[in-house]
Amino acid sequence: MHSTVTKQTGFVALMIVQIVFLVLYWVFVRYGKEASPIDKNPQDAGLNEQHESKYPHFQDIQVMIFVGFGFLMTFLRKYGYSATGYTLFLASLVIQWSVLMKGFLKMEDGKIDLSLENIIDADIAAAVPLISMGALLGRTTPIQLLFMALFEIALFAVNEYVALDILSICDVGGSITVHAFGAYFGLAVSLMLRPTKDQNDAGKYEGPTYTSDMFAMVGTLFLWIYWPSFNSVLADGTGQERAILNTYLSLAAATVTTFVLSALVSHENKLDMVHVQNSTLAGGVAVGSVCNLLIGAHGAVLIGIIAGTISVMGYRFITPFLTQKLRLHDTCGVHNLHGMPAVISAIASAIFVTMVTREEYKSDFGAIFPAMLNETEISANNMTENDATIHIMGGYDRTASAQAGYQLFGIAMTILVAIVGGILAGLVLKYTGFRKLQKEEQHQDELYWEVPAERKDE
Amino acid sequence: MHSTVTKQTGFVALMIVQIVFLVLYWVFVRYGKEASPIDKNPQDAGLNEQHESKYPHFQDIQVMIFVGFGFLMTFLRKYGYSATGYTLFLASLVIQWSVLMKGFLKMEDGKIDLSLENIIDADIAAAVPLISMGALLGRTTPIQLLFMALFEIALFAVNEYVALDILSICDVGGSITVHAFGAYFGLAVSLMLRPTKDQNDAGKYEGPTYTSDMFAMVGTLFLWIYWPSFNSVLADGTGQERAILNTYLSLAAATVTTFVLSALVSHENKLDMVHVQNSTLAGGVAVGSVCNLLIGAHGAVLIGIIAGTISVMGYRFITPFLTQKLRLHDTCGVHNLHGMPAVISAIASAIFVTMVTREEYKSDFGAIFPAMLNETEISANNMTENDATIHIMGGYDRTASAQAGYQLFGIAMTILVAIVGGILAGLVLKYTGFRKLQKEEQHQDELYWEVPAERKDE
Amino acid sequence: MHSTVTKQTGFVALMIVQIVFLVLYWVFVRYGKEASPIDKNPQDAGLNEQHESKYPHFQDIQVMIFVGFGFLMTFLRKYGYSATGYTLFLASLVIQWSVLMKGFLKMEDGKIDLSLENIIDADIAAAVPLISMGALLGRTTPIQLLFMALFEIALFAVNEYVALDILSICDVGGSITVHAFGAYFGLAVSLMLRPTKDQNDAGKYEGPTYTSDMFAMVGTLFLWIYWPSFNSVLADGTGQERAILNTYLSLAAATVTTFVLSALVSHENKLDMVHVQNSTLAGGVAVGSVCNLLIGAHGAVLIGIIAGTISVMGYRFITPFLTQKLRLHDTCGVHNLHGMPAVISAIASAIFVTMVTREEYKSDFGAIFPAMLNETEISANNMTENDATIHIMGGYDRTASAQAGYQLFGIAMTILVAIVGGILAGLVLKYTGFRKLQKEEQHQDELYWEVPAERKDE
Repeated sequence: MHSTVTKQTGFVALMIVQIVFLVLYWVFVRYGKEASPIDKNPQDAGLNEQHESKYPHFQDIQVMIFVGFGFLMTFLRKYGYSATGYTLFLASLVIQWSVLMKGFLKMEDGKIDLSLENIIDADIAAAVPLISMGALLGRTTPIQLLFMALFEIALFAVNEYVALDILSICDVGGSITVHAFGAYFGLAVSLMLRPTKDQNDAGKYEGPTYTSDMFAMVGTLFLWIYWPSFNSVLADGTGQERAILNTYLSLAAATVTTFVLSALVSHENKLDMVHVQNSTLAGGVAVGSVCNLLIGAHGAVLIGIIAGTISVMGYRFITPFLTQKLRLHDTCGVHNLHGMPAVISAIASAIFVTMVTREEYKSDFGAIFPAMLNETEISANNMTENDATIHIMGGYDRTASAQAGYQLFGIAMTILVAIVGGILAGLVLKYTGFRKLQKEEQHQDELYWEVPAERKDE
Repeated sequence: MHSTVTKQTGFVALMIVQIVFLVLYWVFVRYGKEASPIDKNPQDAGLNEQHESKYPHFQDIQVMIFVGFGFLMTFLRKYGYSATGYTLFLASLVIQWSVLMKGFLKMEDGKIDLSLENIIDADIAAAVPLISMGALLGRTTPIQLLFMALFEIALFAVNEYVALDILSICDVGGSITVHAFGAYFGLAVSLMLRPTKDQNDAGKYEGPTYTSDMFAMVGTLFLWIYWPSFNSVLADGTGQERAILNTYLSLAAATVTTFVLSALVSHENKLDMVHVQNSTLAGGVAVGSVCNLLIGAHGAVLIGIIAGTISVMGYRFITPFLTQKLRLHDTCGVHNLHGMPAVISAIASAIFVTMVTREEYKSDFGAIFPAMLNETEISANNMTENDATIHIMGGYDRTASAQAGYQLFGIAMTILVAIVGGILAGLVLKYTGFRKLQKEEQHQDELYWEVPAERKDE
Repeated sequence: MHSTVTKQTGFVALMIVQIVFLVLYWVFVRYGKEASPIDKNPQDAGLNEQHESKYPHFQDIQVMIFVGFGFLMTFLRKYGYSATGYTLFLASLVIQWSVLMKGFLKMEDGKIDLSLENIIDADIAAAVPLISMGALLGRTTPIQLLFMALFEIALFAVNEYVALDILSICDVGGSITVHAFGAYFGLAVSLMLRPTKDQNDAGKYEGPTYTSDMFAMVGTLFLWIYWPSFNSVLADGTGQERAILNTYLSLAAATVTTFVLSALVSHENKLDMVHVQNSTLAGGVAVGSVCNLLIGAHGAVLIGIIAGTISVMGYRFITPFLTQKLRLHDTCGVHNLHGMPAVISAIASAIFVTMVTREEYKSDFGAIFPAMLNETEISANNMTENDATIHIMGGYDRTASAQAGYQLFGIAMTILVAIVGGILAGLVLKYTGFRKLQKEEQHQDELYWEVPAERKDE
């Protein structure tokens, strides 16, 4: 009886959140220029086309968030409704919230201008709590998950704003601001929710069936396929095509490496679906921060090989260690798919950035490294730009090695903020009134879902 | 023996239909301007690019029709081959037919000009009988379904032509002409095919398995993801970006609302997969007729909340009522996903249209409300347009409240035509030579499909 | 013990291949013009946009390769990990290799210029060994498959270069160079690996379950949906829109035909999932070589009807014959989906090409039939073209009937090269040190994959 009351309260609270969002949209959000009727004016006409051209990228990312993440997490034998359902529920809630949060940080005259850009950003932001959800999969209630996500998005938006807009670090594919943040936040929450010593063994339902593993491959493959869109959507000019090419090659190399190492390190040299479902994607994370740089095709392949290696080794050796020694459970192994590859990406970005010159990057220099422009350049740049485009910030005349330093500071700060935030969130989830799952309630849909009774005739 | 003969006759008749289509294409269809070789001419060159830009939208809609509808209907435990297979069969037949039917209504010199536009329209038209199929799922033979679809498409094309081209109502996302039509037509057929009182209980196989529910989520998620493409494909200018933004927000709000209400109204406050699979999408339907209007982001969120609410309540209370009292079965609950949300969309369109002014809509005014232009404007518009673009019809100098009245007339007419058409179709399916399914033959693939025998070793 | 050693050696060898690729990329590959930073220059600016416009096509093809092929092959009851996993593994390996191989054949100053075009080509090339894999499905080790693929890609690249760049045949959708090559190569390998007479019966696991057939439909539907992108990605100008329209209509007609014939030729007139999963796609293959020509909408429908017919008849009568008489096993029936429809496409291309005139094709004439231009035209063409675009080869002043002859020569050469290559590959796989599968090891994942033990509580 008690639990039913708590469930109701949690869901009612979420409805109130939805209604608060409605009010905030009413007060603060208006259509941006691209979505507002215009006087016939040939100069403005081009604007919309430019915007529209990112629509296919946006739709690819939609597939990654809803089908990719959703199905990737269906590998547990009795948690498929939750994996796909909570992904849909959580993403629907946080995309609305992230448009607001990111809008508040950037609004100028008290209004948020809504355009395709905002919902692309919202979809990317949705990846953050979904990554954290991967770490916690099956060990929280949906109510815990959703309130965690609301807090996480707010913190993410602030950290991203500092990293990209103030510190001006390069992170076009979001490896630092999205993947590292989501992974370490989730791991910190998981550490807070760690079981007692006598309950540290794997849950009764913490494994796949043949069919649930097949569903997970739907997620893996769509994430793999569309990752170049995720990494390139915020890149412009020739950097966008580099982002596509580098991500594609890095994924391919990581995949080959993953299969080979999976066979070599596993029992009887058999391939392990956990590696195939996850480590193949590490190449997309590890190349994220540098994919629009001049890393060369071989640079992309090398990063892919390293990412695949680290990720498989992580699943084979580090995850069991963390589980046993720290009682830090990581259901989907996000540390191996998102955490470590993101750190590699940040280190790679520091290395490649030290080699940056104006001569090599030509017209892309200012767009990719605005902080390395000097003041004269930045004002010249802004002057020639159309009023409608966002003014480039930067112009700090930063050297290449200073920029490299900022890259490293960026990842350090992000991990720190994520861990501190995750600890706070974990404490709230643990010590306040949230209903918690008992060991035997974990990794199964039944507590929160109507599940069909299996019948003899099947 | 008898049944085999009937089966053969039905399939042979469909082959004859396909051959008749071949002849009709031979006689009536030619490549449109965009698909025809051109003399090198810089002015025409732009034409093709403009057209090509809708190709990604088209592909998104293809996924909705074939994967979205197909898998959404796989939730029944023994009807997955039929759900995906008949979707593919039916859609392949009716897309060919709809190019012809819609072409006949608009052709000028005895020829149908084929271009990307026609196949976008054909895919949208395919949604109509697929919605009706949802109402009837498992209770007809494929032969009944396909002949119903051929008739339905013809009627749909005429009704749509009257609604959009003659009455000039606003319905960019097709909520009125597609969703309401498909739903009420299907419900009318279902009423005609209603069981006798002693056979009114649920069929033996009329429920999901865990796995079949997971497959249905594939359909749900792809429909959810690509719905902004469906609603925006026929919008132009800044209205296209509004259609994307509003559909996205309405879906998100409907989804949050659906999850909350599903938990609140269900047994033991458990989430119900029927709601998650269907009501989350009601936001896309309910915003369809108004998504390119200046409804504001909050307008989209509000419509989503209302749609999610109505849809879950419909599943919980209205569908059981209709089944028990009227013996009106609606296997997928299309009344809750398509029917009622479409009515909401029509009402919303009437409300928002009363507030339309030339000042607010600026350059979009004529494109969205051609009937509200006066004759001077319409001829000025048509004069400045390139010859290649379709001349805007309209110019009736309609007032905003008159337009609102037309919106309401449009939905009323559509529902009436759909119900009358559905009753006629139902009478034919019931009282002519079509083989009908017995109660115990319903909701299972076996009668029309080779199904693998289940074996002990699985 | 012995088998474990061999497994290790095979996987280590593949890691070495990956490292060799890294070195080759380091030495030979650089970013092409579209991915290289530019000096601000308005003339160059358009270049990138033009390229970007094929990105949505590319992503559609990615889905076809990884999800389409991967899931289409999951129909076997115990081979789903292998179907999706080896598709991912194999494609990741060969896309890297195909960029190199195709680049070597075309490089001018010792460097391969990498751009979006190269990875589109790489994805298309990946289809070739995946088609061959379909013929062999379940009867090779992954190591055999991957080394076969490396050899096959090299041979494919040479054959394609001869067919398209030297012989200048028309094959925009790759029916001849991709589908016929992949199918006949795979069938030749399969013939070499044919079982002894006493082992010629179907394998113990060589059939579907209800669930595995549903997963296969995921593959079928995504292949169906995106086939217009596959066939049109290399077309330009108005030919691209024709390629889309013709492929769409041919698929639709093939699908209707497939369902009808499947019911008519099968036991008890029941639909057969094998036909639905495969023959519905034959329309895409059969229209491939001619889809950008002026075949008319009726031409596309007619080709679809023929393709569906041939393909269903092939599954019903030819495949059993080949299996019983020649012991030529073809697990997925690629002869019916890719082989015969590709031959039909080649014949259709010869027929339609005889009717080609400059007057009809206007501006598309030179782009589609460069060999039919005379020398004056070709140099005029190349002179007016921007430096950045590839110079059109051709200018042989070929007549229409000569071009038709080249089309037939192209398919004959391709089949011959594929069969000879397949025989060689088969001999190597059979008589060298590769581990082979025993009859009872076939069509199941267990030998190479960790498979979850099924439990009582499911």
